[in-house]
Amino acid sequence: MRTITHYFSILTRSLALVTLLALGVPTQAQVDPLPAWNDGAAKQAIIDFVTNTTAEGGPNFVPPAERIATFDQDGTLWVEHPMYSQVMYVLESVPALVKARPELAKVAPYSIVLEILKGDRTAVEKLTLPDLEQLAMATLTGMSVDAFSAEARKWLAEAKDPRWKKPYTELTYLPMQEVLTYLRASGYKTYIVTGGGQDFVREYSEAVYGIPPEQVVGSAVGTSYGYDKDGKPLLTKEPKLLVNDNNAGKPEAIHLMIGRQPQIAFGNSTGDQQMLEYTKAGDGARLSLLVLHDDAKREYAYGPAQGLPPTKVGTFTQELYDKAKKDGWIVISMKDDWKKIFAFD
Amino acid sequence: MRTITHYFSILTRSLALVTLLALGVPTQAQVDPLPAWNDGAAKQAIIDFVTNTTAEGGPNFVPPAERIATFDQDGTLWVEHPMYSQVMYVLESVPALVKARPELAKVAPYSIVLEILKGDRTAVEKLTLPDLEQLAMATLTGMSVDAFSAEARKWLAEAKDPRWKKPYTELTYLPMQEVLTYLRASGYKTYIVTGGGQDFVREYSEAVYGIPPEQVVGSAVGTSYGYDKDGKPLLTKEPKLLVNDNNAGKPEAIHLMIGRQPQIAFGNSTGDQQMLEYTKAGDGARLSLLVLHDDAKREYAYGPAQGLPPTKVGTFTQELYDKAKKDGWIVISMKDDWKKIFAFD
Repeated sequence: MRTITHYFSILTRSLALVTLLALGVPTQAQVDPLPAWNDGAAKQAIIDFVTNTTAEGGPNFVPPAERIATFDQDGTLWVEHPMYSQVMYVLESVPALVKARPELAKVAPYSIVLEILKGDRTAVEKLTLPDLEQLAMATLTGMSVDAFSAEARKWLAEAKDPRWKKPYTELTYLPMQEVLTYLRASGYKTYIVTGGGQDFVREYSEAVYGIPPEQVVGSAVGTSYGYDKDGKPLLTKEPKLLVNDNNAGKPEAIHLMIGRQPQIAFGNSTGDQQMLEYTKAGDGARLSLLVLHDDAKREYAYGPAQGLPPTKVGTFTQELYDKAKKDGWIVISMKDDWKKIFAFD
Repeated sequence: MRTITHYFSILTRSLALVTLLALGVPTQAQVDPLPAWNDGAAKQAIIDFVTNTTAEGGPNFVPPAERIATFDQDGTLWVEHPMYSQVMYVLESVPALVKARPELAKVAPYSIVLEILKGDRTAVEKLTLPDLEQLAMATLTGMSVDAFSAEARKWLAEAKDPRWKKPYTELTYLPMQEVLTYLRASGYKTYIVTGGGQDFVREYSEAVYGIPPEQVVGSAVGTSYGYDKDGKPLLTKEPKLLVNDNNAGKPEAIHLMIGRQPQIAFGNSTGDQQMLEYTKAGDGARLSLLVLHDDAKREYAYGPAQGLPPTKVGTFTQELYDKAKKDGWIVISMKDDWKKIFAFD
């Protein structure tokens, strides 16, 4: 019976499609693919790009297999202020680390972190970059890939952003989610290319962005293959950075992990410059875009481009802004281009 | 007009499908998916694996997104004897290198290679492993990614295997091509996981195996991002091994590049052992398989497993054979399990 029902379902759907087409009902292309965007140059550039690169027989047609879209994550797909979520994970993992190794409680930088966690959790400026690197290696390596995965999942399920009181995974930008969906519906393979940890982002990329783990390119430490006490294979995360997926490291990692030059790329800071240059350097219709955080009310405002307040987290310099304008990249104004910022707005 | 034709084509195909289904014409599942295989344990194990992991509601069902299949290349998907194709590329690139830098002509190992190329081109045992590494770095690095790509493509189009007098890219095993097609038709994403150079294999993987560059995991040197004299971005291949995709390096690279444990994996030598262990260690129905080259007449015979002649190229030890038998891996006998070896047979 199931089989007959199945065939009947195919028949019905086929006929329904034919009927719709015959009646000239608007097809996908005529429905606004980006309803959370205000009309303007940014929205139009994205729609034009998709239209041009998918128009069969057109001068800028890109074969489906070559349709690669890359997205920075922090500040491009989700909130990165006041501090990157993964840095919060690192800091909030310190108490468990100190519990396991009490001798660390009085040793910097662990002692500093314990102080920070008592008060303003975002006061990470007390930590130097070498401090942060030491903390990252201590909390992100030395365990099996599976043990890390379990820890990260637990934290992601429980941790909340202090301003919105919501899980970090809900703080994704609705307009960018629409772009991901629109590009995928247009045959693009969507990749995250992030300075964040590859293993960390892979824990939620599929649920949050519809991006499977194999399409997450991030900073990565090496692993070493071995066996547990029962002889079962396991991979251990080693304190050795293999891929630093920032700045020039982004195109290098794209070549390593994807092997194709993206057709379209989105970023929001100086760390994305080389990825956007690399994308734009390809033949045909290529599009590079930068999200400018200029909406202090609905999200945050930082630059220092265009006189916005300077920041160390997701720096967008005036130099980068000028380069974008000169080279035909699109600067997306969160304030002007985005009708809604979050799905829960 | 094109649009109407297009709709009509959809209608025709839909009706044709419905007609076929109504007539009870055998569907895909009833057609032999592996006609170049003889009936036997190996063929049956592959069919059972696919049937079990794709049976919705069954105990071993694997969601489509998690269906990952990994294949070693040399000796598993195509001929590796008497010498890996990429080593032939390295050796045959030496004359051009010496032409550009004549001072190398009298320096070992370049001088040895020039001698080899005059006579028996497979007499590479005259070269030590450090020699080969030096030659590989000299011929595979130091140029832009695009320049390497052009060189590799040119060689692949011209070079011929000395025994079959055919391009190396035609020496793929028909039974394995059928497995690739069968797995993809069953929702599996097929990956190459090779000790060979990632950039080299990516040049032909799509045309030869239907595997896109982003699904090729191989040994890889680092690249460095920079600009040419006109300021155009380019990536230069650096003489620094970043990923050594052999032995324990295979599961490590699978984690780095894919981030999922394979459901099924194919290899043919000791260099694949860890990948096959790692695959088999996952939950549910996992399958690990090894191709045994025991067909001196139609291809080559080497082991030393099962008393076959020993070799340094694609070594399959008795220890590996015994482990396979003990752990429920499948050993594929080229002689007994493969009805045809090449499409041109």
